[in-house]
Amino acid sequence: MARAGQRNRSTLKRYLPILEWGSAYDRDTLANDLLAALIVTIMLIPQSLAYALLAGLPPEIGLYASILPLVAYAVFGTSRALAVGPVAVVSLMTAAAVGGIAEQGTAGYVVAAITLAFLSGLFLLLMGVFRLGFLANLLSHPIVAGFITASGLIIAASQLKHILGTGAGGHSLLELGISLVETIGETNPITLAIGLASLAFLFWVRKGLKPLLLRSGLGPRVADVLTKSGPVAAVAVTTLSAWAFDLGEKGVKLVGGVPQGLPPLTMPSFAPDLIWSLAGPAALISLIGFVESVSVAQTLAARKRQRIDPDQELIGLGASNVAAAFTGGYPVTGGFARSVVNFDAGAETPAAGAFTAVGLALATLLLTPLLAYLPQATLAATIIVAVLSLIDLSILRKTWIYSKADFIAVAATILSTLALGVEIGVVTGVVLSILIHLYRTSKPHMAVIGRVPGTEHYRNVLRHEVATVPGVISLRVDESLYFANARYLEDYLYDLVASRAEVRDVVLACPAVNLIDMSALESLEAINHRLKDMGVRLHLSEVKGPVMDALKRTDFLSHLSGKVFLSHHMAMCELAGGPERSEAIAAQ
Amino acid sequence: MARAGQRNRSTLKRYLPILEWGSAYDRDTLANDLLAALIVTIMLIPQSLAYALLAGLPPEIGLYASILPLVAYAVFGTSRALAVGPVAVVSLMTAAAVGGIAEQGTAGYVVAAITLAFLSGLFLLLMGVFRLGFLANLLSHPIVAGFITASGLIIAASQLKHILGTGAGGHSLLELGISLVETIGETNPITLAIGLASLAFLFWVRKGLKPLLLRSGLGPRVADVLTKSGPVAAVAVTTLSAWAFDLGEKGVKLVGGVPQGLPPLTMPSFAPDLIWSLAGPAALISLIGFVESVSVAQTLAARKRQRIDPDQELIGLGASNVAAAFTGGYPVTGGFARSVVNFDAGAETPAAGAFTAVGLALATLLLTPLLAYLPQATLAATIIVAVLSLIDLSILRKTWIYSKADFIAVAATILSTLALGVEIGVVTGVVLSILIHLYRTSKPHMAVIGRVPGTEHYRNVLRHEVATVPGVISLRVDESLYFANARYLEDYLYDLVASRAEVRDVVLACPAVNLIDMSALESLEAINHRLKDMGVRLHLSEVKGPVMDALKRTDFLSHLSGKVFLSHHMAMCELAGGPERSEAIAAQ
Repeated sequence: MARAGQRNRSTLKRYLPILEWGSAYDRDTLANDLLAALIVTIMLIPQSLAYALLAGLPPEIGLYASILPLVAYAVFGTSRALAVGPVAVVSLMTAAAVGGIAEQGTAGYVVAAITLAFLSGLFLLLMGVFRLGFLANLLSHPIVAGFITASGLIIAASQLKHILGTGAGGHSLLELGISLVETIGETNPITLAIGLASLAFLFWVRKGLKPLLLRSGLGPRVADVLTKSGPVAAVAVTTLSAWAFDLGEKGVKLVGGVPQGLPPLTMPSFAPDLIWSLAGPAALISLIGFVESVSVAQTLAARKRQRIDPDQELIGLGASNVAAAFTGGYPVTGGFARSVVNFDAGAETPAAGAFTAVGLALATLLLTPLLAYLPQATLAATIIVAVLSLIDLSILRKTWIYSKADFIAVAATILSTLALGVEIGVVTGVVLSILIHLYRTSKPHMAVIGRVPGTEHYRNVLRHEVATVPGVISLRVDESLYFANARYLEDYLYDLVASRAEVRDVVLACPAVNLIDMSALESLEAINHRLKDMGVRLHLSEVKGPVMDALKRTDFLSHLSGKVFLSHHMAMCELAGGPERSEAIAAQ
Repeated sequence: MARAGQRNRSTLKRYLPILEWGSAYDRDTLANDLLAALIVTIMLIPQSLAYALLAGLPPEIGLYASILPLVAYAVFGTSRALAVGPVAVVSLMTAAAVGGIAEQGTAGYVVAAITLAFLSGLFLLLMGVFRLGFLANLLSHPIVAGFITASGLIIAASQLKHILGTGAGGHSLLELGISLVETIGETNPITLAIGLASLAFLFWVRKGLKPLLLRSGLGPRVADVLTKSGPVAAVAVTTLSAWAFDLGEKGVKLVGGVPQGLPPLTMPSFAPDLIWSLAGPAALISLIGFVESVSVAQTLAARKRQRIDPDQELIGLGASNVAAAFTGGYPVTGGFARSVVNFDAGAETPAAGAFTAVGLALATLLLTPLLAYLPQATLAATIIVAVLSLIDLSILRKTWIYSKADFIAVAATILSTLALGVEIGVVTGVVLSILIHLYRTSKPHMAVIGRVPGTEHYRNVLRHEVATVPGVISLRVDESLYFANARYLEDYLYDLVASRAEVRDVVLACPAVNLIDMSALESLEAINHRLKDMGVRLHLSEVKGPVMDALKRTDFLSHLSGKVFLSHHMAMCELAGGPERSEAIAAQ
């Protein structure tokens, strides 16, 4: 009973990590978490407005997505520092997914975004419960890096229309570029001035402000907080200007009326058509969001020798997205920049996220009336400065140097994302990297081996001075045998045997074969059968335990024309006609 | 110059295998090839009519597809025994692909089938020229076995309407079943009688005739020829009856007027819409046809210690399909049953195929007028008897015993083919087997290792009595590192290190790592970086030559917090503080 109780408690702790850290929560931790939450709140207010704009949604949706989802993650997540909320790439993917279904500015668009968050949450929860986190492996590091770089370029380009004040649009770089050129005549000079000034200011804050503050004698912690407040300052100054000079009347696009108050309760749509067309994008968003989130969480956890549980992270992020769906939000995930800020500011537990949520809730209650005069150009400048840190074309150079196959996959991902949009881009990357992997393992390394004289070691005949036994081919296979390489093994063996008329025995040395799947088993059966037709016996040596167990469940071993030897040396001794003859051959 | 000439000649021989075997052609070979061609011709006439019917095409299309394609294969193919032409599964796939685009019986349907053959030929040629035969590996043995079994069931079911004489239709078993039940009232009793009699006769020929002939004193060769003539006899008798009793007037569906004469010259359509919608099915047909064909060709070649070249087979089959497209045919490939017959009848070179083509050409010239009275029920019976040999549900039992993962893939392939049709069936199988493979390799075997006392060998601490060095973790990775398992390695290492506060060094032993792709390299970089944050050094040992070469092209080694050791023993000696201390530890 006691053990069962123990197990129940630990299962509960697995699914509710809050029970783990919550029980040790004290005043010091509270102080640290509160300070971190304050800094992240200052950073998150303009970001959530901006990313909602990027996703084509009303700005308050960005705020809503930064409240309850953060609380849900605080309860279910395992990372002590991850800051959840709207992020750039997922916002872009939301715009691409929802833009194909509804018109921006309609109620249908918002419902679709809410439904997307719900489906995405559902995927993440299901993956977490069924421990399918390995699916995230489909997105290899270089593919994700390439995809995010390309997305960053698209996002930056998509914000140029807000800087110019025109009505350009499009989901790929090509569409955007054409649309920007076509509408360049509509440029509003005041909007452009606000946009460029904000951009210049934000760049300066990012690069030049901190050293200046440090030189002027401020502590690094204070300098950091002031630097992070740059976007808030830009928002405040441009909003004030827009109000004072009535810029809305002069053609400057403002955020406009934002409803005041806490997030509303909302329901995702259960219309089968909508769910069907959003399911694919939701799966992609879940995977991309999860991969990014886990990688940040792991980096930060490692710095404190803490650990995160990727399967539980799926549940944490899933809960966040479901929470977003029921409180008027849209898909969220762990953000890179803001998690690093949270960590650096001293966040010790997920409670910091919950406190950030309180900060955002206060903002929706108190600050929303002020946002009516906020120029969209300011938010666009915030986005551009934020995403430029995502753009990193060095992955192309790195893969080019390291591996041409990886380079092809990355280049194809970047190009297809830029040219055809985010969804086709991700899928292209995934499909290509799988094909490349199958191609690489489809021709495993195989070596004809012979005996190193005077030892029981067998080595590649092409690289070492070794002795072989006439009429016997010893072949070492350096890869697990599975469907992608089963036929290559057949081809290779037939060629080898067909070219040597004197061969009577073939020994496959299997010390590196970790798995023989059904395809490979059938290939081995075919090889055995066909070699028998040629008058050649097939033997195996050094078969690993688990592989042998599986073979014993079939009738392969009873049909095998030769034997299974424990060691390759035993095989060679017997096939050469006893150890004496083998010694004699080795001594030649 | 001489060497260049030599190389040119051998390149030419690679692309034109006819130059190889043609130069040694003599009278004996001719006699053998002619006899084999005669037998295959007898077998192929009813089959080509029947499979055209199965594909929803006019019967003469089947004959056309059995003439020039065979000549093309004779010139470009490498198998000495493969008999090319219309086959059951590819005909079913043709019906599924073309049936979605045009109405049976229209000119558009025939043009679509011709275009499908052209696209399929183009795919095969491109795969051959760019040596992309490895793509066929996507179709694992059990997936193909499951798919063919399911196709056989659908084909048999689809022919029941001809046996009954009703107008049922549909591309999946479910559709077919419902349609058969709905139209059962239309059954024509005379058609049913012809169908059942043909079925009974063909089964008897297959099972009972040969032993009878052998007992009556005939030689096995003659008995074989007579047995193979069963379908021709059924066709002759039922055609004669239909003519004598004017069965067409009594509601028995007959083949009807078949144009007399050699195949017409035709052109595939180049309409972008049509090409776009046929490209996917053409790719699937190419792959399935190629896999089946190569497997038969390899089996037969092995019996004579001959070899085939899979990349050149792509070109041979590609040329056949292009030839089919320009001479009024539809997709063809190497047939299993007829290739075995060809081989058993003594075919020695691809010339046998060319002679078969002559036989079929004579048939289209001379026999077509007689086909007008051939009942469709007879052809349906031929198909049913032929495809029953394809149905082999034992693959389910075999995979269940050997590997549950393979079982799931096969069962899903069979069920989705039966329920949703051939195209979704193949794709389901391919996607599932890739996912299962990625899942299996996503958690590679890893072992913490220690030293076997008194030796330089290191073994799994869980399985052997070995000595370890405090503060040092030795981890052996038993798999190549690539995107599917890169993150698992990260998780595994962080967990390992986070759970042991005393750890100062981690050594990854890499004797079984054949490849480190870019994802895994980035994971190693992240591991190195994060371990450094934890105050732990990362070392590598026993890195293979090619892997080391690739690592040297990057700056990974210069950032590595530890060293790369040639042998794991050297690593342990140094990290333990010299060989003496290591010995002392080992002696404990």
